[in-house]
Amino acid sequence: MPILNVELGSRSYPIHIGSGLLGHGLAKFPVKRVAIITNEAVAPLYLERLLASFEKIGAGGTAIILPDGEAHKNWDSLQIIYDRLLAEKCDRSTAIVALGGGVVGDLAGFAAATYQRGVPFIQVPTTLLSQVDSSVGGKTGINHPRGKNMIGAFWQPRLVLADTDTLNTLPDRELSAGLAEVIKYGLIRDLPFLEWLEANIDRLVSRDAAALSYAIERSCRNKAEVVAGDELETAAEGGRALLNLGHTFGHAIETGVGYGTWLHGEAVAAGMVMAADLSQRLGWLAVSDVERVRELLIKARLPISGAKLGSERYLELMSHDKKVIAGRLRLVLLKRLGEAVTWPAATPEQMRATIEQCCAD
Amino acid sequence: MPILNVELGSRSYPIHIGSGLLGHGLAKFPVKRVAIITNEAVAPLYLERLLASFEKIGAGGTAIILPDGEAHKNWDSLQIIYDRLLAEKCDRSTAIVALGGGVVGDLAGFAAATYQRGVPFIQVPTTLLSQVDSSVGGKTGINHPRGKNMIGAFWQPRLVLADTDTLNTLPDRELSAGLAEVIKYGLIRDLPFLEWLEANIDRLVSRDAAALSYAIERSCRNKAEVVAGDELETAAEGGRALLNLGHTFGHAIETGVGYGTWLHGEAVAAGMVMAADLSQRLGWLAVSDVERVRELLIKARLPISGAKLGSERYLELMSHDKKVIAGRLRLVLLKRLGEAVTWPAATPEQMRATIEQCCAD
Repeated sequence: MPILNVELGSRSYPIHIGSGLLGHGLAKFPVKRVAIITNEAVAPLYLERLLASFEKIGAGGTAIILPDGEAHKNWDSLQIIYDRLLAEKCDRSTAIVALGGGVVGDLAGFAAATYQRGVPFIQVPTTLLSQVDSSVGGKTGINHPRGKNMIGAFWQPRLVLADTDTLNTLPDRELSAGLAEVIKYGLIRDLPFLEWLEANIDRLVSRDAAALSYAIERSCRNKAEVVAGDELETAAEGGRALLNLGHTFGHAIETGVGYGTWLHGEAVAAGMVMAADLSQRLGWLAVSDVERVRELLIKARLPISGAKLGSERYLELMSHDKKVIAGRLRLVLLKRLGEAVTWPAATPEQMRATIEQCCAD
Repeated sequence: MPILNVELGSRSYPIHIGSGLLGHGLAKFPVKRVAIITNEAVAPLYLERLLASFEKIGAGGTAIILPDGEAHKNWDSLQIIYDRLLAEKCDRSTAIVALGGGVVGDLAGFAAATYQRGVPFIQVPTTLLSQVDSSVGGKTGINHPRGKNMIGAFWQPRLVLADTDTLNTLPDRELSAGLAEVIKYGLIRDLPFLEWLEANIDRLVSRDAAALSYAIERSCRNKAEVVAGDELETAAEGGRALLNLGHTFGHAIETGVGYGTWLHGEAVAAGMVMAADLSQRLGWLAVSDVERVRELLIKARLPISGAKLGSERYLELMSHDKKVIAGRLRLVLLKRLGEAVTWPAATPEQMRATIEQCCAD
């Protein structure tokens, strides 16, 4: 059972990946009381098992069950969490546990970062997307009507427990959404992994357990390396920002269409095609490279065209991106397959051309 | 003009204290764009001068003016800030500046900690209380109906600019509220300063500029030392928690009566009398010591009795205190004048006796 480590000095923490971890993965974790934050879809499946696991190590628990979906990653849900934590007199020694996907993890993490100025946090991701991406690295936050994840904090978990058994109950659409982030690691920094994905994408789509485990571990390893090098995304070039390939276009889709209509991974898939298209316009990728990206995403059952919002609306939405520095948007683009760069010099004309090309029917 | 330093490794920052700093204190600060957060009482007095100072160093600025008072230290005000920052496309290189007292500083600091997962922050405190206490140390947050500062983050400023000229416009009641926190430093860790305060309290109340400057500098020096030793208030005993002398009782008063009725410093003054009374019941202080505390606070024109909420209500409110660990309330009490300790073993009976003694008419 692989255990990776995210190396962040005094804030380092392990990622456990494997089958059955919900039942026995907590062996030595020091905690006396937990508040498990989950949603209505996940709670009936896994909440009881996780509460029992905490009981086994002597930790009493309470559960806060939120409505499901990205539309609820907002202040109202956060308010429900704060109210319950205070009503139950949870103090600074109470650990907040996220049981669910990226939305639950981001919300619960932000609650952990801000409740009484910060309490311990544990991630128990139950979707492919959260296992390979959002549970690792400490990004937490909520959405604002004007932009995704605009309010948030960096708050590292003490432990990530990725039980691969939970993928058995994951809807097909969410499995595919997770594969978008898996493919992202290949595109931005791991060409051999990209080639492995091209050879094994059908095994992943059909939920071959060994293939999924390998993809999760290799994705987490990539993520852990990037995060260790640039925890707070302050690197002037490259660094953690590269993990956002496809995300600037993708966030525009999610915000423009309304949170929850597109899954995050779906929007990222379309966004990665747009980033590849723009990279080709800049002369970095060949047309055949862009085609390879499209084909892999199609085989992963992901969309390869963005929502038709109109290019002006895209540009307006993208101008709110967190990677804007001193008024200048830094896009993540591909120098070649397996190597991403941050690029501050794409012109509105180039972006319009890509948007019009990639958002057609 | 004294410059102190808060030693926190890569997060170290200077505190400038002196006359005229609003006009020329920014000499070398590296920032291109600022969002100044202030309130309706402070803006007419100092906003223009501060904006001009930023212009002088080449930084464009916008201002967000909030209603005045502790009652507004809540999510609604935070929402106003986020909306404006996003509407004006402030990005991660925009510095958030707090111009005002503790409420503005706590709110603006929490906005800085959470906007786009964190932006640079500058404190320009304009009240005695914020100059000697809340602007230094990185505690930020908002109130929850169930408790003060229950939602927040540690987020250190890059610079604290305490212009002592701003005290000239401070209402008497707020000057006194600030003196409560000044007296606190003497009580918890600086007996010579306590004795100086007893000898000079009339000069401070009558706003003698030299006396005020000295008191601010010595207070900041005490605070900086404590914060440097225990940035995140994680010390098991003593440490940063000692800065909360009088605050557990005081927060109960503020929350119980309704935010904004008592000034924070007034509630802390009454709370320090209660802490001294309880310390005397435990045999640590002499009756004459408690009398010295009362006399100094009376000369500072501060209340020495708590609000009459009833002892059960006090105990209920105090059970939400952030210093509760694993269900056990740690009170800050006085071993002797000039030496505070955290004490986890006060019984409800002892606390009731103090509350009934110190909240009589």
